[in-house]
Amino acid sequence: MSEFAQIPMKLVGPVRLSGPVMEGEYEVPLATYEAPLWPSVNRGARVSMNCEEGIQCTVVDERMTRSVLFEAADASAAFQALEKIKAVFPALQTVVEGTSRFAKLINLNSQIAGNLLFLRFEFTTGDAAGHNMCTQAAEALMNQILELHPELKYGSISGNYCSDKKATAVNGILGRGKYVIAELTIPEKICRRYLKTTPAQLVQLNIRKNLIGTMLAGGLRSANAHFANMLLGFYLATGQDAANIVEGSQGLTMAEVRDGDLYFSVTLPNLIVGTVGNGKGLDFVLENMKRMGLTEDREPGENSRRLACLCAATVLCGELSLLAAQTNSGELMDAHRRIERGQKD
Amino acid sequence: MSEFAQIPMKLVGPVRLSGPVMEGEYEVPLATYEAPLWPSVNRGARVSMNCEEGIQCTVVDERMTRSVLFEAADASAAFQALEKIKAVFPALQTVVEGTSRFAKLINLNSQIAGNLLFLRFEFTTGDAAGHNMCTQAAEALMNQILELHPELKYGSISGNYCSDKKATAVNGILGRGKYVIAELTIPEKICRRYLKTTPAQLVQLNIRKNLIGTMLAGGLRSANAHFANMLLGFYLATGQDAANIVEGSQGLTMAEVRDGDLYFSVTLPNLIVGTVGNGKGLDFVLENMKRMGLTEDREPGENSRRLACLCAATVLCGELSLLAAQTNSGELMDAHRRIERGQKD
Amino acid sequence: MSEFAQIPMKLVGPVRLSGPVMEGEYEVPLATYEAPLWPSVNRGARVSMNCEEGIQCTVVDERMTRSVLFEAADASAAFQALEKIKAVFPALQTVVEGTSRFAKLINLNSQIAGNLLFLRFEFTTGDAAGHNMCTQAAEALMNQILELHPELKYGSISGNYCSDKKATAVNGILGRGKYVIAELTIPEKICRRYLKTTPAQLVQLNIRKNLIGTMLAGGLRSANAHFANMLLGFYLATGQDAANIVEGSQGLTMAEVRDGDLYFSVTLPNLIVGTVGNGKGLDFVLENMKRMGLTEDREPGENSRRLACLCAATVLCGELSLLAAQTNSGELMDAHRRIERGQKD
Amino acid sequence: MSEFAQIPMKLVGPVRLSGPVMEGEYEVPLATYEAPLWPSVNRGARVSMNCEEGIQCTVVDERMTRSVLFEAADASAAFQALEKIKAVFPALQTVVEGTSRFAKLINLNSQIAGNLLFLRFEFTTGDAAGHNMCTQAAEALMNQILELHPELKYGSISGNYCSDKKATAVNGILGRGKYVIAELTIPEKICRRYLKTTPAQLVQLNIRKNLIGTMLAGGLRSANAHFANMLLGFYLATGQDAANIVEGSQGLTMAEVRDGDLYFSVTLPNLIVGTVGNGKGLDFVLENMKRMGLTEDREPGENSRRLACLCAATVLCGELSLLAAQTNSGELMDAHRRIERGQKD
Repeated sequence: MSEFAQIPMKLVGPVRLSGPVMEGEYEVPLATYEAPLWPSVNRGARVSMNCEEGIQCTVVDERMTRSVLFEAADASAAFQALEKIKAVFPALQTVVEGTSRFAKLINLNSQIAGNLLFLRFEFTTGDAAGHNMCTQAAEALMNQILELHPELKYGSISGNYCSDKKATAVNGILGRGKYVIAELTIPEKICRRYLKTTPAQLVQLNIRKNLIGTMLAGGLRSANAHFANMLLGFYLATGQDAANIVEGSQGLTMAEVRDGDLYFSVTLPNLIVGTVGNGKGLDFVLENMKRMGLTEDREPGENSRRLACLCAATVLCGELSLLAAQTNSGELMDAHRRIERGQKD
Repeated sequence: MSEFAQIPMKLVGPVRLSGPVMEGEYEVPLATYEAPLWPSVNRGARVSMNCEEGIQCTVVDERMTRSVLFEAADASAAFQALEKIKAVFPALQTVVEGTSRFAKLINLNSQIAGNLLFLRFEFTTGDAAGHNMCTQAAEALMNQILELHPELKYGSISGNYCSDKKATAVNGILGRGKYVIAELTIPEKICRRYLKTTPAQLVQLNIRKNLIGTMLAGGLRSANAHFANMLLGFYLATGQDAANIVEGSQGLTMAEVRDGDLYFSVTLPNLIVGTVGNGKGLDFVLENMKRMGLTEDREPGENSRRLACLCAATVLCGELSLLAAQTNSGELMDAHRRIERGQKD
Repeated sequence: MSEFAQIPMKLVGPVRLSGPVMEGEYEVPLATYEAPLWPSVNRGARVSMNCEEGIQCTVVDERMTRSVLFEAADASAAFQALEKIKAVFPALQTVVEGTSRFAKLINLNSQIAGNLLFLRFEFTTGDAAGHNMCTQAAEALMNQILELHPELKYGSISGNYCSDKKATAVNGILGRGKYVIAELTIPEKICRRYLKTTPAQLVQLNIRKNLIGTMLAGGLRSANAHFANMLLGFYLATGQDAANIVEGSQGLTMAEVRDGDLYFSVTLPNLIVGTVGNGKGLDFVLENMKRMGLTEDREPGENSRRLACLCAATVLCGELSLLAAQTNSGELMDAHRRIERGQKD
Repeated sequence: MSEFAQIPMKLVGPVRLSGPVMEGEYEVPLATYEAPLWPSVNRGARVSMNCEEGIQCTVVDERMTRSVLFEAADASAAFQALEKIKAVFPALQTVVEGTSRFAKLINLNSQIAGNLLFLRFEFTTGDAAGHNMCTQAAEALMNQILELHPELKYGSISGNYCSDKKATAVNGILGRGKYVIAELTIPEKICRRYLKTTPAQLVQLNIRKNLIGTMLAGGLRSANAHFANMLLGFYLATGQDAANIVEGSQGLTMAEVRDGDLYFSVTLPNLIVGTVGNGKGLDFVLENMKRMGLTEDREPGENSRRLACLCAATVLCGELSLLAAQTNSGELMDAHRRIERGQKD
């Protein structure tokens, strides 16, 4: 049997980026079984190259989480234990420092349900996405807490209030992964020329499809056309744990007409990506990272923030292109047919 | 640049399956960057081999969907058009038949929001997951409806009420993909021996973590530990569009003590998988399909139902193993450390 | 002790209504502890009186539901039972006819979770909201099904898939209560004069607050400012079970600029209201019903549809007024202060 | 026209309470159109009187919130403003102190969506539920922030990230209202005698109906049978703004067998109640408050915490009774029929 699943991979771009984290033009790798993804993202990339400032990316927050679960005798005991645990937060930070050079405990949230106590630890994790680092730190924290609180019993090293790879609201509200916003202002002419649509049409579609349509579908903190597609392609090509597209794809597309031009942005509160860790040692991943300038020696966290910006910009490109196509009757299917015919030739 | 992202892939199993769709013992391929996944699923597979009937898989439903969006003058016009469209459902079925040998229109749902009309078409699609087949059929249906109803205007070929690759409730409630349930009854002795836990411990953890913990996290139609991990590995190894793990991972784990033994089941209402279509022509995919006996000539839909059962059984194996590990303090991290040390040696 | 909680009640309006169900100008009673609600709804009502066609109300659907829960040996047994139950749907309809003059079984939905079978029965219930009628019918259906299917065991007369008075997605997707849409087109001048705002400002606020803000809050099928306030006041004043504002308040506000004017609509998919049943025999309720013309002898269901339209129109008035106030810095709090000062004088 | 909606009101109980906040036996008023609610809650109250410690109530948290919305030029500007606003938190607290004797700013959360900045202010509000106090404080905060940050523009005094009277996840996760847990341990004999069921039956029903059934319905942070009914009755009888049952009803019922007895608890994270403010000056409300001992002169906040405990205990009584009834085929409808026949006699 083959030792590898070989997912077709291509470069798209260049994409033009700006903003506080990085500036420049970058080619981005995407691995996918869905061939129409490449030309679709490419069209968005071409638009970015024709907008003076390109796609402006801002990293608003970053943290990784693990929730643990304790059992108390009753709610009152759980509450008292929680108050004491919060009171020794600095000591807990010290515990975490002993588990890793990079993990830092930055915050603690909680839920009490009946006699159950859920603690949600939040860490920064350097350039790693941080799953294992956080589990290790959480284990040390649990052990410490159980030692100090014999009135608590071990419940679970993960209590699903983390929340890893699930469709929940907690990650967007309390934070998990990189919180990145990518924005692009597209002159009306460029919009017509490359996207075959007008700012007004795209704005209307975004409201009706992404905001209202998703809401009617019973969507949860989600208002976009297909973030998941770009995330999957980018995550696979850069050695990320792609199961994190579940929470990663919960994000928001915004579009507004501004002085006749199109303001278009994607808000991605839960990008769980890193430049070190599982998957990053594979040759093609290293090559891809290098091509995007992410193997350089920088402050811890800096490379992974750049990775997150490149990811968000790629999502913007694909989202923009698909929405534009859907403003026009017949365009989407034509594109698919053309591309798939192309494949057969 | 490499033409492929090469995701490490291994066989797990054999897994023992039974039930209305298929019986036997099967090895299953999983592609992942996360090495601990293989031994974890393997442990569950070993349990299945030690349970007389193995994992019983039932396919409860199957359909693929696309929602389209029309604009009317007002709600009353939208409502009247809807009534007329529903009245000519057989004619719409005929339209669909003209677009594909395999697509059949089986149902129609709707939402009216203000003056907007969302139609959600449901199709069977033979052995294909059916994304493109459905888009093509939806396009033909839209054209037909727009011709018959000049009072409606094109809104979008996809109105997000489908709902593709998003965290929503509609797919679980109205159906999208294969709805599969996998069940396993594990004698208490086997539970202790292979899973190092008791039925009662596992039941309690499932209630507290998967049901209560996810609910507190603001989960949506989701109560499981890590369906997404197994789905990703299985989807990549079998040429599926893995972005569909977003809705695929919204499912339910149940556990009950029955006469001292453990009843354990996973309910997966949204498995979007196929044995034909994009990605299925790659050599390693063909090889994997063949190994699982899915390249044989069967009634349309039969091979893809078998694929869905194999997928669900794999999810059960991994879910069972992780939950068992989390009932014991320290076990999860120990396993990770052992495996990762192993990798470095 | 007092035998009654006495909730302050006032008439608001008149409100102008049009559309397929009813036309005319109506005063509407609202009972509330929150005095600012009356002038707020009144302002919206005044706007409706200044718009030629008034508020156009459309009833898109109506049904009442109850879900029951059965236990089977396994998923396969649950599935087989379900298939057989669906095959005898006409016989089930006959069972329901024997339980009430008004209840009619119109549809059946289901969920299978592991070995559990949830059936969601949908009924029309004449002019009653129908809670009890449906429970009674569901009980008869359960008994019949248990008799025909000894392989099923009683689980619960209500399995929470109904879903009564809970924040869920199922009611909006499958239907529960009256599905009503109220629409108003407001000339730009009227908008400025009575609402002190412009169509463009109101549209922008609706997108940012109701659509985006609610989505960020992890909202579920909800995008409005304060439907719950008007619903509570209307339900109490008309003898409804006001706990149903939980699902009733899950609805959508839409606003668009059309040729310079403001199109404004509220979509309320889950209005659970009736003109007969508990609470309707109280003197003040009868008086209120009579004043709105709802005690006349009409076809069964007709009066309750009118009630639902009056309710939706009232919701529109209050929603419009509050949103308008919030477009202007300081206006909301000024109004509250003025009203509360007024109360003290 | 009548100046009051007269909702039938009765005392239920006495209920036995214990825990850190209050101890004793209390009668509780409930106003409702649904007559079966009184005997149902009464049955639960009787159970509490037969359990040595009664219902133990714990208040885990309390805060009231208002979110405001600003517009910035882009995400980067929004982010920079946010960082500066967080840096002057103590000054913001001083601003709030100037608006009310009771309001205190205790925390600040945020969301950035594209170029929009949502700030969620959290306050303590003494014995008031605090809607108006918070709006007033939020207005002062907005004005201050707009003065310091000319780069921000007024968006809305309420951005729906609060979130008031809507089905969202944010309130349960970040807190809004009193977070109260009520617990009762019921000896097996008492369970059989008063509730006509066994601990094991009730536990099983709670898992299947409240946890699994609600999840299948697409429930959001909700797992209970009918919290909304008791909340409505209690809120109306005590002068609360009953539209807050929308978020109030999002809570969790837990049941476990412990040494053969039944542990039963309700977790209510969002009880928005007060002993002062709108509605509290009405005679019957005063009388009710007095009867429950809530008009005594206590530390600010103390009376409203007691009110919240009484409310949670009442919810527990009604929830317990209904679940018990639903474990037995036929019991629910029989009770309804008996009560309604009784009413007619």
